[in-house]
Amino acid sequence: MAVFHGGNLAAATQQFGVPIEEWVDLSTGINPHPYPIPDLEKDLWGRLPDQHLLQDLKEAAASYYGVDCANKVIPVSGTQTLLQILPHLFEKTKKVRIVGPTYKEHAYCWGLAGHDVKEVPLLSQAEAEGDIVIVVNPNNPTGEIYMPEDLLALAARQHAKGGSLIVDGAFMDCMPDIDLSQHVGCEGLMVLRSFGKFFGLAGIRLGFVLAAGSISQRLKDGIGPWAVNGPAMEIGRCAFRDDVWIEQTRVDLEDAQKRLDMLLQAGGLEVVGGTSLFRYCFHPNAGQVFEQLGKAGILTRPFADQPQHLRIGLPASEQGWSRLKKTLDKIHL
Amino acid sequence: MAVFHGGNLAAATQQFGVPIEEWVDLSTGINPHPYPIPDLEKDLWGRLPDQHLLQDLKEAAASYYGVDCANKVIPVSGTQTLLQILPHLFEKTKKVRIVGPTYKEHAYCWGLAGHDVKEVPLLSQAEAEGDIVIVVNPNNPTGEIYMPEDLLALAARQHAKGGSLIVDGAFMDCMPDIDLSQHVGCEGLMVLRSFGKFFGLAGIRLGFVLAAGSISQRLKDGIGPWAVNGPAMEIGRCAFRDDVWIEQTRVDLEDAQKRLDMLLQAGGLEVVGGTSLFRYCFHPNAGQVFEQLGKAGILTRPFADQPQHLRIGLPASEQGWSRLKKTLDKIHL
Repeated sequence: MAVFHGGNLAAATQQFGVPIEEWVDLSTGINPHPYPIPDLEKDLWGRLPDQHLLQDLKEAAASYYGVDCANKVIPVSGTQTLLQILPHLFEKTKKVRIVGPTYKEHAYCWGLAGHDVKEVPLLSQAEAEGDIVIVVNPNNPTGEIYMPEDLLALAARQHAKGGSLIVDGAFMDCMPDIDLSQHVGCEGLMVLRSFGKFFGLAGIRLGFVLAAGSISQRLKDGIGPWAVNGPAMEIGRCAFRDDVWIEQTRVDLEDAQKRLDMLLQAGGLEVVGGTSLFRYCFHPNAGQVFEQLGKAGILTRPFADQPQHLRIGLPASEQGWSRLKKTLDKIHL
Repeated sequence: MAVFHGGNLAAATQQFGVPIEEWVDLSTGINPHPYPIPDLEKDLWGRLPDQHLLQDLKEAAASYYGVDCANKVIPVSGTQTLLQILPHLFEKTKKVRIVGPTYKEHAYCWGLAGHDVKEVPLLSQAEAEGDIVIVVNPNNPTGEIYMPEDLLALAARQHAKGGSLIVDGAFMDCMPDIDLSQHVGCEGLMVLRSFGKFFGLAGIRLGFVLAAGSISQRLKDGIGPWAVNGPAMEIGRCAFRDDVWIEQTRVDLEDAQKRLDMLLQAGGLEVVGGTSLFRYCFHPNAGQVFEQLGKAGILTRPFADQPQHLRIGLPASEQGWSRLKKTLDKIHL
């Protein structure tokens, strides 16, 4: 069974009968105020993705991520594409341990490729059992965080025993304190970064893997040429260098998060974690909350294996905020 | 060693010192008159690629390729991305035989994944030895063609012995007579199609694999969700349904091909094959021709293993045509 995801308004419309254009979609963790699309030259669409532009994108990304060398930055067509190929670049005899509950595609893709995969609750257990340890940091959906020094020490121990640590930093952009991208180059460590979430451009399919050493070459070979579309390369290199937009967005997202927390808590949901792009909420009847919000055209993200929790993202407009507030007031949680 | 490709103006500039903007790039087989980019809604960039839109793209593609069911159409982020993942979806004990000389990424990607791979000169030899037979039809760069009835019979024989036939139809759009996409569903057959070449939009990264049966599900799982970026999905579905543009482009490309043949032959090159998007030329000193054209800012495609041949694509503008003509006149082949 393929993994269930947020953001699927087509499925939500089938379930609730709300017309597609009327949804307030809070089911993803994507910034609803995207980086503005710059002017795009005709050649970006027509020609094969250009090598100079690719190099410049890698340099802009290296600078944004704090990586000392553009060679350690490998652009991919969205992190998901990387998750599809990555498990094939390791021998199939590996024990893969994923700290969870977390983003389900990790376990799904490694399992599909034939590895021995388990989601385990503790990092220490993942380390004890895993040739490959996968941590999502901050975790999606719980928002749990691991400190860089702990993960760096873990990467070193993994490397010493011939293993690896993969850190999925899809939501790391708002949390400089836990960002260990600058340490890529330590053997045994690989960091995955997503462009589309913080920059609000999930549709362009842009992600990065930060890695050095032998796995880096295997990754480049495994991903191949022309992985990223031309427009995405141009948009990425502009966005990474727009310090003003980046700084303002961090501030705006933090404000929006506080506003969302107040609203959710006033509405009877307990915010127990998350990042500034989504909140992880507890409610004894979370399933009913999901249903009632859904009937009112507000889509949130339920989890089959966490039935008392919902993940709730940021509204895109004042109308969305106001509909969320009114609906929460009305449904008497 | 990664594969050498056409279209790399950055490398050409280093080799010949011609500024990037001055090149007449004839080194690829991409239509230089691209399908016009339609209006693109904001959500295509911002949101995760939409499932309704994906379904509509699949239906438009099925209709264009003559496939009876959209379910047999699997969109990918350019055919190259498919070549990277495909070899991992088969057991590593397979004998893969590729009819060549041909597009080198096939052998490279299957080899990288650990299969027993050989390029062989004859289809019969590929069949005799191969669990998996790969044919590029029409072939790139030679333009050699195989008739659909022969390939369909081969696919059936491959299936009967537990094998597969993969037909790379990247340049099939101009050749309805050899198109076997409509026969996808015959067990053992998989057809790869490229959007960017005929439609002149290589930068958007859009390709398709046409397949049915068990391999189709394995492909869908292997490729995963959100493989194609939002703008590419919208452009693709518009282009596939634009019958007027498609028909006119077939005529225009055929005219351009005839014009190019006359010009190349007058210039001393023997056109021995190709498609309407590129010509495959023989010259006893093809290496020198490549050099002299390169010094004059005209980039063609040489082949390390075919030193007496060049592949030459269509100029994008009258200025390009005229520079090619003048240069060929001047260099006295």
